[in-house]
Amino acid sequence: MTQDAAYERSMRRALDLAGNGPATGVNPRVGCVILGADGETLAEGWHRGAGTSHAEVDALAKLPAGAARGATAVVTLEPCNHTGRTGPCSVALLDAGIGRVVYAVADPGEHSSGGAERLRAAGVAVQGGVLAEEATVFLADWLFAAGLGRPFVTVKWASSLDGRAAAADGTSQWITGPEARQDVHRRRAQADAILVGTGTVLADDPALTARDADGALLAGQPVPVILGTRPIPAGSAVLAHPQVPLFFDGGDIGSVLRALHERGIRRAFVEGGPTLASAFVAAGLVDEYLIYLAPTLIGGGRLALGDIGVSSVAEQRRLAIDHIDRLGEDILVVARPRERNDHVHRNH
Amino acid sequence: MTQDAAYERSMRRALDLAGNGPATGVNPRVGCVILGADGETLAEGWHRGAGTSHAEVDALAKLPAGAARGATAVVTLEPCNHTGRTGPCSVALLDAGIGRVVYAVADPGEHSSGGAERLRAAGVAVQGGVLAEEATVFLADWLFAAGLGRPFVTVKWASSLDGRAAAADGTSQWITGPEARQDVHRRRAQADAILVGTGTVLADDPALTARDADGALLAGQPVPVILGTRPIPAGSAVLAHPQVPLFFDGGDIGSVLRALHERGIRRAFVEGGPTLASAFVAAGLVDEYLIYLAPTLIGGGRLALGDIGVSSVAEQRRLAIDHIDRLGEDILVVARPRERNDHVHRNH
Ligand SMILES: NC(=O)c1ccc[n+]([C@@H]2O[C@H](COP(=O)([O-])OP(=O)(O)OC[C@H]3O[C@@H](n4cnc5c(N)ncnc54)[C@H](OP(=O)(O)O)[C@@H]3O)[C@@H](O)[C@H]2O)c1
Ligand SMILES: NC(=O)c1ccc[n+]([C@@H]2O[C@H](COP(=O)([O-])OP(=O)(O)OC[C@H]3O[C@@H](n4cnc5c(N)ncnc54)[C@H](OP(=O)(O)O)[C@@H]3O)[C@@H](O)[C@H]2O)c1
Repeated sequence: MTQDAAYERSMRRALDLAGNGPATGVNPRVGCVILGADGETLAEGWHRGAGTSHAEVDALAKLPAGAARGATAVVTLEPCNHTGRTGPCSVALLDAGIGRVVYAVADPGEHSSGGAERLRAAGVAVQGGVLAEEATVFLADWLFAAGLGRPFVTVKWASSLDGRAAAADGTSQWITGPEARQDVHRRRAQADAILVGTGTVLADDPALTARDADGALLAGQPVPVILGTRPIPAGSAVLAHPQVPLFFDGGDIGSVLRALHERGIRRAFVEGGPTLASAFVAAGLVDEYLIYLAPTLIGGGRLALGDIGVSSVAEQRRLAIDHIDRLGEDILVVARPRERNDHVHRNH
Repeated sequence: MTQDAAYERSMRRALDLAGNGPATGVNPRVGCVILGADGETLAEGWHRGAGTSHAEVDALAKLPAGAARGATAVVTLEPCNHTGRTGPCSVALLDAGIGRVVYAVADPGEHSSGGAERLRAAGVAVQGGVLAEEATVFLADWLFAAGLGRPFVTVKWASSLDGRAAAADGTSQWITGPEARQDVHRRRAQADAILVGTGTVLADDPALTARDADGALLAGQPVPVILGTRPIPAGSAVLAHPQVPLFFDGGDIGSVLRALHERGIRRAFVEGGPTLASAFVAAGLVDEYLIYLAPTLIGGGRLALGDIGVSSVAEQRRLAIDHIDRLGEDILVVARPRERNDHVHRNH
């Protein structure tokens, strides 16, 4: 095996290790493998979430003092250069006497980047970009949030094939079947926050928890965020959520997202209703769409999406479909905006 | 091979032969194989459309006089007992001295059924139901029209993922891509009539012809049928259609369909617009839905489907999805009503 192939193999292992970490939270999932002089694995580590050791430190901690001297650290993200709740990884690697660092993607963080530079300056051989594509896909929403200073925004809705979210009398329960609803709960559990408008809270009194098919709470529970100016009743189910709900008036969605980002929220799951979803689409602040289509027709005026500021077909919001799934009898369309946010700057 | 397996094999061949006939028109596609005493094929035939020989007669005509005496006729549809533009097939088979008739599905026609009975009465061995399921699927819309006294109705629309057929200013061209539009033209060519409301004629001035990708006319051209009370301009493109257009006020869709059936129309393709499509859905007169979904969002008030008389989710029109295709970037959902027309009789 060539040296490059050996690093790629170890990087693949490091990505697997990274996957052991929590999908949600402010910190990225990172894995690390320490290789000896003959390419043998000396230690492995991964990051278990904010406040715990970074992957490099986790791996080094498994070795006796001096054992990493001259070794190679293969790590999925550029070692950080930032003293937060833990010290910079670049320093930990230098202290351990690591001779070479191989990483996949650069750290885009304003405060945390610069690790590669610091290591190089200290004489360590540093090589970036190994399996960069896989690692970028793996860290997509975290990298995205780190670059934009706001969470990655998923907007979800469920509608009939003719785009209705509810019938004329407002009844909307059970448009989609159990498989689709379970899919929503699984995805809720992977988000840091779940956003709804006051309209939905007042109409449906949702619990906004992530639950399994039996109604038991899943391990991850996103923070419920309620947007709107109307007060919600003291007995609202969301007030009993395991995470303390956040409230915003929602007048400026961009500033709501920045505030959520500052609180460590990297993945926001917008569950509607139609008014709030339309506001996100109109503002060009949607990164991913989950459109659950039930095989039914409803007609009438209760639309899943209202006005989104499009007045001619030339202005329509084109999406790129990632994939289409069948969930029981329902259809799930996963899509992204075709040109991210370009319409916001378009001349009308 | 057992006798039954041999008949099934010949029936499969007869179904293939039937497929040579035209998909449109008042008559069913029928195929026939004449078998000799040792099961060898003596002759094959199929029906080429109204006014031409039926399949049995087509096959018999290929044999010298007397050659079919005692032979077995394997035919996809019960031989007719009706003198129309051609004589009854039951009589032709008797005259040829056929000893046994094997068929797949019974003729449901009011005037044409009774062939099996007549043959049996004359001493011919008759066996129905061979490959009945395949043949029923093959003849589905013809059998359906014959049983109900109205054409099989396909309603098609194209919309954005949020159910809009046009943008606020009415622009609707190019919501779907070229593959989806070509698919519509192919399906138009397989229909006997194409129905639109005056709203669509006045807004879009469509030609309503079935064309290939280069704009050349396809072999089959459905009769254009315009529903509504408003006059259409003398220069309307549809008036130059190769088939003479029909006009109805459309106030009673059921009687329009019966009138079309009387004119030999067995497959009606309803192309909209939204008002007419909604009227068909509300009346429970849709047998098949073709919903073309473009990967785009439009919002606003130009809906692909308007009010369909549903006021609560309990009354929604559930569909059964036959299949989902990707056509270029678009999605085609082919679906049927889950319980045909049951909602029409439902108590509210
Ligand atoms: N099918 C689905 O996927 C789905 C999902 C959720 C809900 N629903 C249905 O949707 C219905 C509720 O609809 P809805 O549209 O009233 O609910 P909504 O979108 O949850 O709430 C609308 C409210 O959100 C607040 N808001 C905060 N920021 C906003 C902004 N930037 N732009 C616009 N509004 C903002 C406003 O509240 P204030 O007026 O208080 O300021 C507004 O009235 C219910 O029938 C529910 O069952 C369906
Ligand atoms: N995306 C698509 O798939 C698609 C397809 C076609 C059209 N379109 C768009 O749809 C728009 C036209 O919409 P539209 O709804 O006005 O068109 P429409 O449905 O073609 O026409 C409506 C008219 O149909 C007549 N009609 C006859 N029988 C009827 C019945 N039983 N119930 C109701 N109406 C009946 C009425 O005409 P009178 O008033 O004359 O009596 C009515 O005004 C255009 O912008 C066009 O581009 C989109």
